[in-house]
Amino acid sequence: MEDGARLETVDGLILGGTILCLDEAMTVIENGALAIVGDSITAIGAEEDFRRKFTSPNLIDGTDTLIMPGLINSHTHAAMTCFRGIADDMHLMDWLTNYIFPAESRNVDEELAWWGSLLACAEMIKSGTTTFCDMYIFEEETAKAARTAGMRCLLGEVLFDFPSPNAKTPSEGLAYTRKLLERWSGDPLIRVAVEPHSLYTCSRTLLLQARDLAEEFQVPLALHLLENLSEKKQLQKQLGQEAVSYLEELGCLNERLIAFHCVCLEEKEIRIFRDSGCKVVYNPESNMKLASGFAPVARMIQEGVCVGLGTDGCASNNSLDMFQEMDTAAKLEKVRHLDPTLMPAETVVAMATRQGARVLGMGDVTGCLKAGKKADLILIDLNRPHLTPMYNPYSHLVYAVNGSDVKTVFIAGNMVMKDRKLLSLNEEEIMRQVHRIAERVRKSLRKPA
Amino acid sequence: MEDGARLETVDGLILGGTILCLDEAMTVIENGALAIVGDSITAIGAEEDFRRKFTSPNLIDGTDTLIMPGLINSHTHAAMTCFRGIADDMHLMDWLTNYIFPAESRNVDEELAWWGSLLACAEMIKSGTTTFCDMYIFEEETAKAARTAGMRCLLGEVLFDFPSPNAKTPSEGLAYTRKLLERWSGDPLIRVAVEPHSLYTCSRTLLLQARDLAEEFQVPLALHLLENLSEKKQLQKQLGQEAVSYLEELGCLNERLIAFHCVCLEEKEIRIFRDSGCKVVYNPESNMKLASGFAPVARMIQEGVCVGLGTDGCASNNSLDMFQEMDTAAKLEKVRHLDPTLMPAETVVAMATRQGARVLGMGDVTGCLKAGKKADLILIDLNRPHLTPMYNPYSHLVYAVNGSDVKTVFIAGNMVMKDRKLLSLNEEEIMRQVHRIAERVRKSLRKPA
Repeated sequence: MEDGARLETVDGLILGGTILCLDEAMTVIENGALAIVGDSITAIGAEEDFRRKFTSPNLIDGTDTLIMPGLINSHTHAAMTCFRGIADDMHLMDWLTNYIFPAESRNVDEELAWWGSLLACAEMIKSGTTTFCDMYIFEEETAKAARTAGMRCLLGEVLFDFPSPNAKTPSEGLAYTRKLLERWSGDPLIRVAVEPHSLYTCSRTLLLQARDLAEEFQVPLALHLLENLSEKKQLQKQLGQEAVSYLEELGCLNERLIAFHCVCLEEKEIRIFRDSGCKVVYNPESNMKLASGFAPVARMIQEGVCVGLGTDGCASNNSLDMFQEMDTAAKLEKVRHLDPTLMPAETVVAMATRQGARVLGMGDVTGCLKAGKKADLILIDLNRPHLTPMYNPYSHLVYAVNGSDVKTVFIAGNMVMKDRKLLSLNEEEIMRQVHRIAERVRKSLRKPA
Repeated sequence: MEDGARLETVDGLILGGTILCLDEAMTVIENGALAIVGDSITAIGAEEDFRRKFTSPNLIDGTDTLIMPGLINSHTHAAMTCFRGIADDMHLMDWLTNYIFPAESRNVDEELAWWGSLLACAEMIKSGTTTFCDMYIFEEETAKAARTAGMRCLLGEVLFDFPSPNAKTPSEGLAYTRKLLERWSGDPLIRVAVEPHSLYTCSRTLLLQARDLAEEFQVPLALHLLENLSEKKQLQKQLGQEAVSYLEELGCLNERLIAFHCVCLEEKEIRIFRDSGCKVVYNPESNMKLASGFAPVARMIQEGVCVGLGTDGCASNNSLDMFQEMDTAAKLEKVRHLDPTLMPAETVVAMATRQGARVLGMGDVTGCLKAGKKADLILIDLNRPHLTPMYNPYSHLVYAVNGSDVKTVFIAGNMVMKDRKLLSLNEEEIMRQVHRIAERVRKSLRKPA
């Protein structure tokens, strides 16, 4: 800094560390540096150069860290943190009918949605997620929680034919969604999608209305699709056709469709998805725990479908840690097909970042580190026994790092966690409130279903 | 404490917290307490009572923690931490021939074994493991490292027909093992096993000699067995019989046999193992990453085989975190058989504790919390967003906790970690030394094979 007077002042400056840009070229910069102005990245380069060019009131030492885009959790039910571990190791129908549905109908209200979503945001930031895609009940609360946490998200109220704690009829659900769309229009962090739950819980009429609403606002249409074989068989029986051809008939297949799970997608359907630009979210941990099956994720990627990665909700995972999800995503296809070359680490990290952003229609905004993109980024502390030594940073991210190794998090240029301390949320208060809500949930489950 | 004069002084006292004893009855004590004298647990009971009975210079507040037996990692190659992530996502033969074998033959020496083992101990303690079962080269160094760390272990020098950096011939390997057996005899923490690598790398003569040595000292005989289908086929061809019947013929099937992996164990072989009291170690993460296949673990447990859990070495996992291994162990069988009731959380936690101790022949010493057992125990910090709320502690351990949530660790009554600070090891120095060794490894791999 021989000539301090000529240093340019930026809002945030990270000096040192290995930067993984996760751009198309998979650029890696050793001894890197990154400058933030407002909500955006303005420059990425070498530490040595940046020390001579920039200064900042917010100077972050990146030494011994990996710096990468914040992770994108492309399928969550955030407020379900309140039901984390409420019931495990049982058949889907037992789980749903005797635990999840009663727990939800007796307990989900605005208060649970608010505190549960805040808890999810705290957990996600602490494990390196900066953007999430949510579907649940009372999503206005989730939107406000994400805004409070300073997180980026795409969210929508779940729509189905039967009543929810927030909507007596499908029309009420659609009206609530329209209000969300209007209220959050233009928000820098929160985007709204139209989210019919699934083909087996939504009538043709509801699906068409949802499609029209998504069309009107030009936003994503997101739904669960072909999560397991029994759903596939039920749909074949109910619709008299395959699920994807039904979606085609309804005019839903376009680049704004986001389909969660897709465990039972056939080869032909994979190609239709690719040709229509439909997006898929892979949820391997939930698919394993609920015994849903193996999604053909390596095939989808080979065929050119854009696939993101998600944890699903906390009743079926039971964690929102995207590092563990990456680890599982890399390993499951290998053992299923007895081929260790499938789902290499780089591919999996891209799913959780750049591809995830494309899935949510945010490819222009986030998912990689590049001048002009929003400053959504995380620093991972490498100075730990289980991360020593490091030969390959991508391998480390997938096979060795866990969420607790995330040190510092920026979203849209704001530092929301520093040295593992949350700056936007009161962690203790959130945990206290959720413990209180859990007590109510516990009591409610003692009543007969 | 109205009558302080009558309090009994113990060496360690934990007051508060939920105690999971992991005994046969799966006892759970809310607001529990535990007293330690010397290297053993002397009493477990209610916090309220213990406050009136005991006092200690080492008083640990267990509030908001789960207290459980230390985890038992039943299959490791500790010093391979030095090769963590050296090569991934490739076929087994490519991985072995072009990366692992050259890296080992050019780099493994006493120094690498020492620092690599110390690093493994640091990582294991920090993720809640108190006992491990090791096979590698220069195991005297691993024994000394475990002793320095204060960890309990069962270990043995790897034996095979070809030369290792520590033994030019199988006889040298056997002689080294005999020295280990003699030198560590009677040690309170370190036990030695005889460890032929596998049936495909050891001649009949070597296997018989190994069997005799294990017989002479009445210690376990541990080996890799049927890790994947190509090994099974190769053995059928080479031996003209099935692997298990060959082991039977050699007189190796008894309650001291520990077989790692057993991915390709047939129904008939499972019953032979059960009837002979042979022990098995399940390594799901390694089996997934190397695309070895699905071990029939639920079947083995149903049939009554004693099965422990292990991470395998850091070149094929790439972490020693037993919490992640438990998560995978619980989920993999579910999706493979499309049955979510397989491998429930309680079963998996027992594999990593009580059953693991039985596998290693330490069932009388460790693996559960009970008066008279050694004080090998861990405290898990529940005061974290991703562990809020808690409905079921076993579900939490398997599906939500990760190694970084472990707060405090006791082994044989010694506190080896307190509030995440290692007390027996110099973490910074170990990492510094392993970084230096990794630099040498990196250079060695640039030379042609």
